[in-house]
Amino acid sequence: MHQITVCFSPVQFPNYQCENCNAVVIDILRATTSICTAFFHGAKEVIPISTVDKLKTYIGTEHLIAAERDGIKLDFADIGNSPSCFTRELVRGRSIAYSTTNGTQTIHQAAQCNSVAIGAFTNISALCRWLVKGERDVFLLCAGWKGRFNLEDSVFAGAMAEKLIDTGKFTTKCDSAIAAMDLWSLAKPDLPEYIRKAAHSERLKKINAADAIPYCLEFDVTNMVPVYCNGVLFVN
Amino acid sequence: MHQITVCFSPVQFPNYQCENCNAVVIDILRATTSICTAFFHGAKEVIPISTVDKLKTYIGTEHLIAAERDGIKLDFADIGNSPSCFTRELVRGRSIAYSTTNGTQTIHQAAQCNSVAIGAFTNISALCRWLVKGERDVFLLCAGWKGRFNLEDSVFAGAMAEKLIDTGKFTTKCDSAIAAMDLWSLAKPDLPEYIRKAAHSERLKKINAADAIPYCLEFDVTNMVPVYCNGVLFVN
Repeated sequence: MHQITVCFSPVQFPNYQCENCNAVVIDILRATTSICTAFFHGAKEVIPISTVDKLKTYIGTEHLIAAERDGIKLDFADIGNSPSCFTRELVRGRSIAYSTTNGTQTIHQAAQCNSVAIGAFTNISALCRWLVKGERDVFLLCAGWKGRFNLEDSVFAGAMAEKLIDTGKFTTKCDSAIAAMDLWSLAKPDLPEYIRKAAHSERLKKINAADAIPYCLEFDVTNMVPVYCNGVLFVN
Repeated sequence: MHQITVCFSPVQFPNYQCENCNAVVIDILRATTSICTAFFHGAKEVIPISTVDKLKTYIGTEHLIAAERDGIKLDFADIGNSPSCFTRELVRGRSIAYSTTNGTQTIHQAAQCNSVAIGAFTNISALCRWLVKGERDVFLLCAGWKGRFNLEDSVFAGAMAEKLIDTGKFTTKCDSAIAAMDLWSLAKPDLPEYIRKAAHSERLKKINAADAIPYCLEFDVTNMVPVYCNGVLFVN
């Protein structure tokens, strides 16, 4: 049996041993959902970039620049961070330089693990198959919000953990995984209603970006599992 | 209305603004329960000490030394970290130098807040009254386990948050507080059974210290609220 560990926030990451795990980075509203969408619509690659300064070096290159801070599109970026920005027309065949408040830094951090994949409700079943095939312990890393816990990533971690345990090949003795599954058990009957109470739902409302939420909570829109290697996300 | 914020782990603490809050440090298994017990049994003061080296400077002084690391009593300590160690006979009128794996460091960290109190199920109602009287925002700081989330502290935070909201004087828009209350809603019908699945229950079993758990989950054993000032815990 392989173990499942859940980490609720990147600042807790150094307190875990996960070098031999296959990791999943989770930033449901909206980075990891948007990355899945980009590949679903034919993007060639996504380059996650931590800092605004580094992202600026991509201005005037062939890359499409996608970026937000505190939910709002940066003025020099081509597009923001809603899945709906990543249209087939815009992203097909393109390399996307991408930077967000929480998600992209978290991807770089997870690079210490054996493999890193991008997780969202929109690719949850494909991701489950990828993790089963990987035959390793699994580390579910929530991006959270500025070093804090958030509901939507944690509930996804719970859904993912439950799915893995249901295969009979995984188990857990991690308190965060148990808590995440318990939260998922409460959210499951009506996920959109549950996520309505998340602080980030409110933040997105305030910046008129709440229309992205229903899509971010849809299951299995795509079969693609973006993975991270040498600074770049791609799909096989 | 005053706000309630929950922080699941001391490593997340720097990501919160809580200087003006009244804080509660939570380490249910066993540090904060033991501190409440010490005062219930007449201790004069408890000095929380972060490092083993600093604690050693108390050897041979008039202080009672209480200490554990990874759940196990340190060899030079007079007593370990179970509430049952803090008997009236031993602690009455005494100053206790106290160091534990997670709890004591967390107390020092919380000192940045307006006031710091010690929270446990054993003093939850008294603590609620203290927080209501304080008329400030409340910051519930879980000690967790070595920088990670743990179930027992989080569930207590949920119970405390619910109690505060029930007074009609508090509210929350903090995702961790919402999650903690949701976990508490699941734990409430049978708290001992719920805590059985916590990793620390297993750890305590392994070191033959699980007999401390039922007491740590008892409500309102004492009306005392230990508070922290100038490096020392005391009760008014």
